[in-house]
Order: sequence, then C-alpha cells, then structure tokens
Amino acid sequence: MQTSTIHPLWCIEQSHFDPQTQRHWETVFTTGNGLFCARGVFEEGYRGEERAAFMHGIFDDVPVHFTELVNLPDALELEIFLDGERFSLGQGEILAFHRWLDMRTGLLEREVHWRSPRGRTTRLHFARFISLADPHLMIIRFSVHPLDYQGEIEVRAGLNGEVDNLQFKHWDWQAQATSQQQAWLVCSTRKTNLPIALGAYLHVESHTIVERAGWDVRNHPVLVARTLASPENLISGEKIVYIYSGREAPNPQDVVQSRLAQTHAPLWEQAWSEHARAWEREWDACDVIIEGDEEAQRAVRFSIFQLLIAAPRQDEKVSIGAKTLSGYGYRGHVFWDTEIFMLPLFTYTRPEIARNLLSYRWHTLDGARRKAQRNGYKGAQYPWESAATGDEVTPTWVPHYADPTQLIRIWTGDIEIHISADIAYAIYQYWRITGDDAFMRDRGAEIILDTARFWASRAEWNPNLNRYEYTNVIGPDEYHDHVDNNAYTNYLARWHLQIALNILEWLRDHAPDRHADLIHRLELTPAELTRWQDVIHKLYCPLDPQTGLIEQFEGYFQRKDVRLADLEPRNVSIQVLFGIEGANETQAIKQPDVLMLLYLLPELFNAEVVHANYAYYTPRTDHTYGSSLGPSIQAIMACRVGRPDEAYEHFMRAARADLDNVRGNAEDGIHGASAGGVWQAVVFGFAGLQVSETGWGLKPALPSHWKRVAFKFMWHGQSICTEITPHSPPSIHQVIS
Amino acid sequence: MQTSTIHPLWCIEQSHFDPQTQRHWETVFTTGNGLFCARGVFEEGYRGEERAAFMHGIFDDVPVHFTELVNLPDALELEIFLDGERFSLGQGEILAFHRWLDMRTGLLEREVHWRSPRGRTTRLHFARFISLADPHLMIIRFSVHPLDYQGEIEVRAGLNGEVDNLQFKHWDWQAQATSQQQAWLVCSTRKTNLPIALGAYLHVESHTIVERAGWDVRNHPVLVARTLASPENLISGEKIVYIYSGREAPNPQDVVQSRLAQTHAPLWEQAWSEHARAWEREWDACDVIIEGDEEAQRAVRFSIFQLLIAAPRQDEKVSIGAKTLSGYGYRGHVFWDTEIFMLPLFTYTRPEIARNLLSYRWHTLDGARRKAQRNGYKGAQYPWESAATGDEVTPTWVPHYADPTQLIRIWTGDIEIHISADIAYAIYQYWRITGDDAFMRDRGAEIILDTARFWASRAEWNPNLNRYEYTNVIGPDEYHDHVDNNAYTNYLARWHLQIALNILEWLRDHAPDRHADLIHRLELTPAELTRWQDVIHKLYCPLDPQTGLIEQFEGYFQRKDVRLADLEPRNVSIQVLFGIEGANETQAIKQPDVLMLLYLLPELFNAEVVHANYAYYTPRTDHTYGSSLGPSIQAIMACRVGRPDEAYEHFMRAARADLDNVRGNAEDGIHGASAGGVWQAVVFGFAGLQVSETGWGLKPALPSHWKRVAFKFMWHGQSICTEITPHSPPSIHQVIS
Repeated sequence: MQTSTIHPLWCIEQSHFDPQTQRHWETVFTTGNGLFCARGVFEEGYRGEERAAFMHGIFDDVPVHFTELVNLPDALELEIFLDGERFSLGQGEILAFHRWLDMRTGLLEREVHWRSPRGRTTRLHFARFISLADPHLMIIRFSVHPLDYQGEIEVRAGLNGEVDNLQFKHWDWQAQATSQQQAWLVCSTRKTNLPIALGAYLHVESHTIVERAGWDVRNHPVLVARTLASPENLISGEKIVYIYSGREAPNPQDVVQSRLAQTHAPLWEQAWSEHARAWEREWDACDVIIEGDEEAQRAVRFSIFQLLIAAPRQDEKVSIGAKTLSGYGYRGHVFWDTEIFMLPLFTYTRPEIARNLLSYRWHTLDGARRKAQRNGYKGAQYPWESAATGDEVTPTWVPHYADPTQLIRIWTGDIEIHISADIAYAIYQYWRITGDDAFMRDRGAEIILDTARFWASRAEWNPNLNRYEYTNVIGPDEYHDHVDNNAYTNYLARWHLQIALNILEWLRDHAPDRHADLIHRLELTPAELTRWQDVIHKLYCPLDPQTGLIEQFEGYFQRKDVRLADLEPRNVSIQVLFGIEGANETQAIKQPDVLMLLYLLPELFNAEVVHANYAYYTPRTDHTYGSSLGPSIQAIMACRVGRPDEAYEHFMRAARADLDNVRGNAEDGIHGASAGGVWQAVVFGFAGLQVSETGWGLKPALPSHWKRVAFKFMWHGQSICTEITPHSPPSIHQVIS
Repeated sequence: MQTSTIHPLWCIEQSHFDPQTQRHWETVFTTGNGLFCARGVFEEGYRGEERAAFMHGIFDDVPVHFTELVNLPDALELEIFLDGERFSLGQGEILAFHRWLDMRTGLLEREVHWRSPRGRTTRLHFARFISLADPHLMIIRFSVHPLDYQGEIEVRAGLNGEVDNLQFKHWDWQAQATSQQQAWLVCSTRKTNLPIALGAYLHVESHTIVERAGWDVRNHPVLVARTLASPENLISGEKIVYIYSGREAPNPQDVVQSRLAQTHAPLWEQAWSEHARAWEREWDACDVIIEGDEEAQRAVRFSIFQLLIAAPRQDEKVSIGAKTLSGYGYRGHVFWDTEIFMLPLFTYTRPEIARNLLSYRWHTLDGARRKAQRNGYKGAQYPWESAATGDEVTPTWVPHYADPTQLIRIWTGDIEIHISADIAYAIYQYWRITGDDAFMRDRGAEIILDTARFWASRAEWNPNLNRYEYTNVIGPDEYHDHVDNNAYTNYLARWHLQIALNILEWLRDHAPDRHADLIHRLELTPAELTRWQDVIHKLYCPLDPQTGLIEQFEGYFQRKDVRLADLEPRNVSIQVLFGIEGANETQAIKQPDVLMLLYLLPELFNAEVVHANYAYYTPRTDHTYGSSLGPSIQAIMACRVGRPDEAYEHFMRAARADLDNVRGNAEDGIHGASAGGVWQAVVFGFAGLQVSETGWGLKPALPSHWKRVAFKFMWHGQSICTEITPHSPPSIHQVIS
C-alpha cells in the first residue's frame, strides 16, 4: 500500500513502541471530525490500553461525577490472525515500528514489521481517517504482507458494544444483524436512553478468499474473512464504519442500514479526496506558520488540529470539554476553558463554530437559572462544570487519592463563580470580532443580561466599608479557596454589569421588540437596573495606587511567602508538595490569576500596573505543575512586558503539555485550554494582535530565533492575512483578501 | 423431555411470568453448590434482569465499597433462534409459563409455550443444576419443540466475559479457544489478578444437524448448532460447563481444557445421579420437618437450601456474605450475620462447614489485628464488614439515596464493635456442641484470646463512677449510633473476657505447648490478665433490680417514646419515616437489641428479666421494616415467654422475607441471617432445644396448628433425631443413632 509523505512540519511521529508511553501516544494520536473522536489505540488492541472514542452530547449518569461522555461502542476493532497466530504487539518481536499522524488531513498511519512467537515475519500497515466531509464515516485501510511464509490470514472486524468508561458500563444492547460482509449494532445509554447505531462493512482484496463469515454474537457482531497470502501475494482491505446517534437521526438504525446498503467498496479513494479537500479548507482558514522553529511550528499546528477535531460543526447544543473528545479527564465536562482559552481560535478563524459553542450556553441557560435559584440568587449562574443540561455537575466529593476511606470536598461547583462573567466576556468578544448582531440580539444578550442579574443579586453590601463585595469565592487560582474579593472575579463582574447595561441600550436602539421582551421576561425593572449601577460604582476592585499592585484577594499579601525557585527540581505541584491546606496558607499560586485579569481587560490598566504585577506574581506561580491554563497567559503577558524570550519558555511549556507530556497526565486527554492558549500566545502574544471597537493592529514581540509568523483571521466577515518578520522595525504585511 | 415430579413441600413454583417481579424471582431461584451460585435468570436473557453468578473468594476492588464479590463470566447464556426468530419472553406471546425449583436436588426447571412475533408456537423446556458432587460442573438441559411449523432451530451457547457488577466491570480477558463443539475462556480480575477459566461443551440431539460453528469472538466465544425441527422431531441437548478459579487450581485453564477433552456427552444422566445422591446426604443431615403448615415447611426448607448452596465445603478461607452468593447486596461482605444467625445450622447439622466458616476468621486474624492497631488498641478487632483479607471494608461514605450531591457517613465500620465478641461466642458454641478440641486448640483459642486483648484495651475507666465503660458504640440496633454502654456490647464483652480466661486455663491443662506459644505471641502477661479480671469485675452491665429492665444504652429510657402501632400501615422503615436523626431521638429500635442478649446468654437472666424486657422492647421494635435479623430472634423470645402463636407471626415474617419479598428488597439477594434465624426459630424457639455443657433437652412451644416437628442434630459426633408432637405433655422422641 502506498503511504503518504511524511512532512516534518505537519506530522507527529512515533518511531519506537514503548508500552510505558502507550496511553500518552493514544491521546496524541486522537483523530476526529468534530462529531466524534477516537483515541490513537491500535486496531487490534493492546493490554492496558485506554481504548476510547467519544461523540458530542452522548452523556450518561455515573456515580460521583453525575454524568460523563460515554465511550462509544468500539468500531476500530480489527483483529488479524497470521496463519493461526494472533497479531499483537504484546507478544512476538517488533522488528520495526513507525506511526505518524498527518495533521493536514488527520490521517493516522502505522507500519509494523513483526515476528510472531512461532518466528514468522509479517509487514502490516494500517491507515485510518474519520471523515471531515462525511462526519458519520470512518475508514480503516490495512495491508498484511507475509515476508517469509505463506498461510491463512484471518481478518476479524467487529463492532463491540461491551465497552466501558474506566470499568463503568453505559451501553445496553438493543438490536443487531450480521451477514458475511456487513454488520450493524444498536445500543442505548442506560439512564439517558440515547441510541447509537454503528454499521461495519469489511472489504478484502486478495488473491484468494477462502471463507467469509458473520459472527452474530450479541452486542459484538464480527465480520470474518479468511484468505491466503504469501510473500508474492499480500492482502489488503478496508473496514468501513458508519456511526449515527439518535441526536443526529431520529432512527439511526435505519440510516446506518441504508448507508450500508449503498456502500460500494473499495470506498477509500473517493471518500479520501472529499475528506482531504475539507481539511484543506480548514487549514486555509486556521493555519499559523512559524518559521525558524520546527518544534513550535508542529506544536501550534497540533494545538489547532486538536481543537478543530473536537469542534462541533453541525451542532449548537454541545461544547468542547476540558479534555476535548480525547480522554476521560473531567468526564467530558465543559469549563471556562472553552470560552476563555479555546474559543478565540474559533472566533477569529471559524466564527460559525464559535457561534455553535456560544449557542450551547444559550441552550443550557435554564440549567444556569436552576443553579442560581437553588443558591438563592436571581438570574442565571453558570455551572462550574457543565454537561448536557447546564446543571452543575462538579463532583461535590471525590475519594482521596492516597486513602480512599477519606474524601476530598470539591468546592469549585459551589463557589468558583467567575465563569458567568467569562461566558459574557466570550460572547462580547465574539460580537466585537464578528459583528454578528443577530447572535447578540437573539441569544447573547439574554445570557449577558440574565447572568448580570446573578452578579447584582450575589453582591454583598459591606456597611462598614461602604462597598459591595463578593466573599467566599474561588478565583482562577484554585490553590486558594474560600477567599474574599478575588480581584479577577470582582473586576470581571463589574465589567460584566457595565456591558450588560450597554447591551441593553444597544438592544433598545437596534431591536426594540427584543428589548421589550427581555425587559419583561428577565424582570429588568428600573430598580434592578439601578442596583446594577450601584454595584458597578461601589464594587470593591483593588489596586494599590502606590505600588500598582492588585492584591489577588483580600489578605493574600499577608499569606506566607515562599520562593518556589528554592523547591526545584520537583515533579509534583505545589499543592501536592504542601498539601491542600498548606498551599492555601502561602502565596504560591496555581495560575496567574491577576495576570489573567490584566490580559482580558487591558483597557483598564496602564503599563506600570502590568509591569508591577508581572514582576510580583511571576515568581510566585507554579508554572510547571500548577494549572495547565497558566503558561500560555504567562507567555502573553511576558510579551506585553517586552520579554519575548522569557515568553517563549512559558509558551513551550504549553506547547509541550501533550506532545511531550511534561505534566505527566496527557493520558487523560488533550489539555484543550492549553492548546487554545498556544494559539493565543502566538497571535496575541508574539504577533501582538489587538482588536478594538474600531479596528485592529499588531504589536509583535517575536522570540529571537523566529524568522516569520503568518496567520489569517476574520474580522466582521473579512479574511485578513497577517505576516510578521523580525526586522527592525518589524515589517508587517496586512492583506485584506 | 421428562420433567421431575413437583412435590409441594419441596418445590418453589412460579406459574406466571411478570416482568415486575423478575428480579425477585431471580433471587429466589438461585442455585449453587457452596463453591459458586447463579441467580435464577433465564438462559436466553431478559431486558432489565440482574444477571449474576458469584464464586466464593473472587473479590476485586470497587469504589466506595472497597472490594466486592465479582459477577462471574456468564456461563448460563443459551440463545435460541426459532426459524430465524430470537426466542425471548420480551416479545411474542407467552401462552404458558411454569418455573420451579426442586429443593431436594437444587434442580431449576422452566417450561414455556411461546408464540413468536410471526405467530409460530414452540414448547421449550430448560433444566439446570450446579453439581454438588462435582463442584466445578454445571449442566443445562434444553428441549425445543415446534408445535405448528418446521424450520431451523439455532442454539447459541456462549461464555461471556463481558459482564459487569451493577455496571462496573472487573474482568480482563486473558485467553480463549473455540472449536465447533467446545470453547474455553480465561479472564482475570483487574486489580486482584485472580484468574478464572470456564469451559463449555454443546451437545445437541436432533434428527438433522445442519451446521455447527464456533464463533471465536474475543471474551465471548459462542458455540452454534443449527438443526431442523418440526412437530414430529423436537430437538434437545445439553450445555455442559466447567468452571475453575485460580483459588482451586494453580492453572485453571489446563484443568478446564483437560475436563473438556474428557467429556463424553450426553453427561446429564450420570452427573445427575451423583449430584442427587450428594443432596440426599445433605438433606438427611439438615432437613427440618414441619407438619400441619405447608408454607412454613417450604419456607424452612428454602432457608436451609439457601444456606446450604452458599456454604463452602472445600474452602476454609471464605465465609458466607450477608446476601449469600445470590445478589449484589452488601457486595459479598461478611458480617456478624454469619456467626450469630447462619452458623448454628451448620454447627448443629454440618459441623465440617461450621469449622470452615470459623477458620475463615482465623485466616483473616491479621486483618483484625491491623484494624485494632490502626484504632490504637491491642489484639484483634474484627471488621464490621469483612472480605478477602479481614481488613475493614465497610464503606465510610455512601451517596444519599435521594440527593447524590450529599453523602451519608456510615459509622458501623468505626464503632459497631460487638462483632469481635459475636465471633468468640460462635467459636465457643461450636466447641461446646461439637467437642472439637483440636479446632479450639489450634485456631479458636487464638481468636478468642487476641480479641479479648482488644476488649481489655478498649475498656475505658470512668473514675467518677468507678467502673469500666464502652462509650461511643453502635449496638445491634443501628437506629441509635454513638451511644454509651450498649448493654448487648458490654455483657458480651464481659462474657468474652471470662471465656478467654477459661480457655486459657483449659489450654494450660490440655495443650501446654500451645498455651506457652500463645502466652508468648499474644503477650498475655500477668498484668494483661489482671486487667482482664479487672474489666470483668468492674465493667458496667446494666440491670434494674426493681423492674428487671436492661436499658439498651445509657439514656435510652429518656429518649422520646413513640407508639409504633400508631404509625401503621406503613411500607418504609421507621428510619426512613423519621429520618436518620429523627429515629435516633426516639426509643424506636431496628431490632431487639436487648432480647438478642437474653437469647445468647440465657444463663445470666431469670424468667422475670426475660418477661419484663420482652414486654418493654417488643412494642418499640420496627418488626416489619427494621432489620431482617430481628423477627427470628423475636420469635424465639416469644416462645421463651410462652407465646408460641405470637412467635409464629414473627417467624413467618422471617420465613417470607425472600419467598414473598415482604421487605421489597429480595432482589438484592437472599437475607442470609433471616434464613439462619428461621432454622433457629424452629429448633431453639418452637422445639426449644437447649444444649448445655453436660447434655441437651427440649422445651417445645409449638404454634397451635403445627402437628409435628422433626429434625436431626449432631452433638459431640453423635447424630440425634428429634421429634415433637403437640400432645399434652408433648411427646418427645429422642433417638440417638
């Protein structure tokens, strides 16, 4: 079989198989199309693998975490028996191993030379793609070439409904049928009752077909083909898979049957060309070119690729979880990671996708309203962790990692409240960049206004200090919980209330009917709006005029100061090192909480403030094992204070989070926020893109070894090509296409 | 196929299929042989079934409950396709349904007349037994008789490793092979790494075999036979299953393969006769005859049957869980239920089994020592819930049944400490009844002495009242936790310390080497033994000399008195009705805590005390929905106060716990303690058997409608036949065989 050319700037390669790093590579080699993704597991299976595939919106109940994305019935399964011996990298001898992902097209290939326990050598090649053009289609191509024997090659292509999520099963078998060449299977989730239908077609090209069979085992139909092969006659073939859930088709079983009936194999060539064209369009919009730094180039493309394959294109009722669709981490739950870290890529390059992601929040507004009501507040309070309904699904207690008789209380679902402002911020940015007035009118405004009501009702009046406060919260820095007046939270809340008033004015002028409707439905009485004004004017938003420092929360400066540099080298977080309570008592922070604020609301703070806070907080931040959300923002702020090479260190920490597994937890799935941050660090940090109400500009600060940065973005429907080279003064070409 | 005769006094029958009661009947129709048991599920499966089988000692890690008995790979699976239509009671029409368990032999049969969706009628018959003579063998016999068509009958007999425990998967696939008539499968538990091997052999007797196939699907091999059948030519056959875990065979895969190789089908007739003979011997030793009360007769046999099929015969490192091997309730964990409720049946009729069960506690003594040490005490403190190692496995927190964001703290594992005395009590009874000095010398004494050390170190000196106390405990009545000086606990502890001193004396006289060994190893210094004496003399054991009342715990009489009769009718427990805290504040009790004490230590209390406490506590006990451990003891104590007809009411409440599902939770498994209590109520209550150091006697108090009670028991190696008829004075025939 012909394999694709390996382009080092576009390919992620693994040249050696090590069982110890298997799960890490499974995450890295995740492929998908925004409808579903599959981890980079071997078709034939491997002991200890984390075999999983996920589809947006397929949630089911689970203990402790309430709900989780369900591992799909396994459609990758392809077992091969070589003259009676099972092909498995767990036995025999691996003479050569090469696996690579071509990010241009999401093609994952593997070539293995394997000597069986009985001593026979075979060359096997696997390639697969999940179609971007036909989102319900996946094809695996395989070839098997005996090098020193002739014998029977048996290929078994199954659809396996007996899968689990970390040992927990979600699927109930519903129906199936198996013929010699085709099989289909329908399962449904046990509690949420969502059906999924899969179809498989096994096509084998061979000199001699000995036998075909369909094994109709309940919940695991398998298509079998036995052929003869030899050094002169290799065999090859395709496993063609269709997958539809009840979310895309009212009767997915019928659709799958009909697609199977219409299948003419081989299908690869035709499906591939459509798929490749779709990817070409995608990269044309989203690619970022970095010259002079191969690693950074690959990493930024990898980050973009991972977000693109997780991004819903036809569905506005789902969003991207913190670990995308690539692993069990956080169980598919959606955090502020999406709006603050991942969304800008889409807002600036694929606004239709950004609109889908933001619409998810509109569709789940009732869940946010239920949360506000349960907590005794007005309006809508978004959940810290969100899934199908928008109800809070943060676990309240989890078993202690060291002693399972003990439990750890998780407070983020109760008091990490900044997410409502983060969502409003993302909507406002989307509107500013795209000019999508219809979205703001029909959906965005309702979110911003109803969450503003939450902020107003949540504000506490402190009569002694004559100010409003938000006490007992958690800011972005989760090493410190139950704090008062977190600067990030307070500033964002004040901004949010002001924007809400502006939007209301805009609505009055541009959509009076909608204005009236929302005024009425959300009970935006004059008293309510006066309250908003009052909170805006009197909310405590700290800034020391002498030093320019913003205290992260009240009393932070009194906490014990620790020099994190003295604790190096370490391979655990400060929280693990000091304990939860111990870390809480220090000034060590999990991520740059105040710098996040300076980043999001640059218009509020002058250069002195930025420099002062950068200098104060940087050495107190757990850059290596704190939050994976930190390094990219740290990189951007380092650019803002004119330190691009220092920025580069932080940037590469984010860029390597998954590719090099620098945090040791990449097996749980892609760090989606970090991936989004990598894109932001290049575009808003090194390239220094700044967009305001009236236009946009670039203030580059490239690392010294970078030769060129180029990318496109969309602004009010226009595609803009940007190119930066490090001449002095930098030569910037802005081309409006 | 010929079916067995249905004897109403020996058979449990179900004459109508109702999906609503399916899981209840699955529990009732559990069959097994003391090595493993299978719930009474349909061979072909049914949606919503609780399909499970359990084998002693096969535990694996699970969240919340720490460890659980693992649902075995499914060997019952037998799917039948009738001319292309799947046989399933979930579709088509059930024209007749009859299922019955013959307790004489543990044979479970089912006969169904079924009309398929396409309108074809078939008579199907299934019979199965798990061999008592060959404990690794199970056979299913089936016959399929088309009544109004001729067509292809396809039988699929699988071994399915893809099973779960309430959605949680424990098995990892290891190896398998499938030919056309035989298949084997090896799996192992994920955390505890215990292998299990199963073999299946499919034998079909038919006019015409059309085709045979072996479907070698990973972790689910299936044997397939296609035949032609018609009204003139029914087909029949056997699925023969072998099962061995790594606990019985170092290489279970080899043993299963070798047994398959030696199988000559049909096997049923030969295996059946050996099996039936084994059951004959069992019933000869254990049967209890009740004349004049068919329901009671069936119920007592059912109770004995359920305990016999869960009783380990070849294994002294396991014990019987609270729900036997019949369901997920309490996850297979072992409680005091075994020693106090189930054990007497075995001690009196099958002492070899009792010895195995008590040996389990000796093998897990190190777990009890770890628990004592962790809690800061000396000696051995048995866990409230015990599994493979004897370490405490009571869940510390469980999700609230109504609101899963809330947790309920389970305190029994921390402070329900009476179990150590219960185990000592059971050992002492076993010794007294069997005269098994070797067991006492080699194992029993070590348990009694090391747990006595626990009691001595756990005793708290109260200088104000000049007495020892046990504060902050839970007694048998779990409606009240964190109580001080629970009478049951204190009296049993005092008894335990005294018995320990007696045993030490006995050892000194009869086994001086062992005496010296234990004195040395358990550090039984003179100071330690003086402490024991001191605690015996000064431990607070309440008894009001005026009223004869024993206060269940300190302050109990001051709790709010409630008339439980006023709360009828109800279908929930008092604890659910009042809430956990609410019930704690009243005198309502979950089970007769003080009466348990009077029952176990009759020599300490005179008739006035028994009457006074019976009168006080009976109306305050939640007989219907409190503990299922209560009614049998209540029945015995009712006999002791001369109220056999009142006793009968309580007795039938226990007798119906599973057969009639009076508590509504029989689907979780057999109430093993209640079953043991049913036997005790007949023998120690109605028949009034009393055994002392020197001999034994009967004080019958039969319900007025009973005509005759007869049973055997063993006393110091002699088998004694007892027969009671209700003449006045009762005629009692005591025959020493």
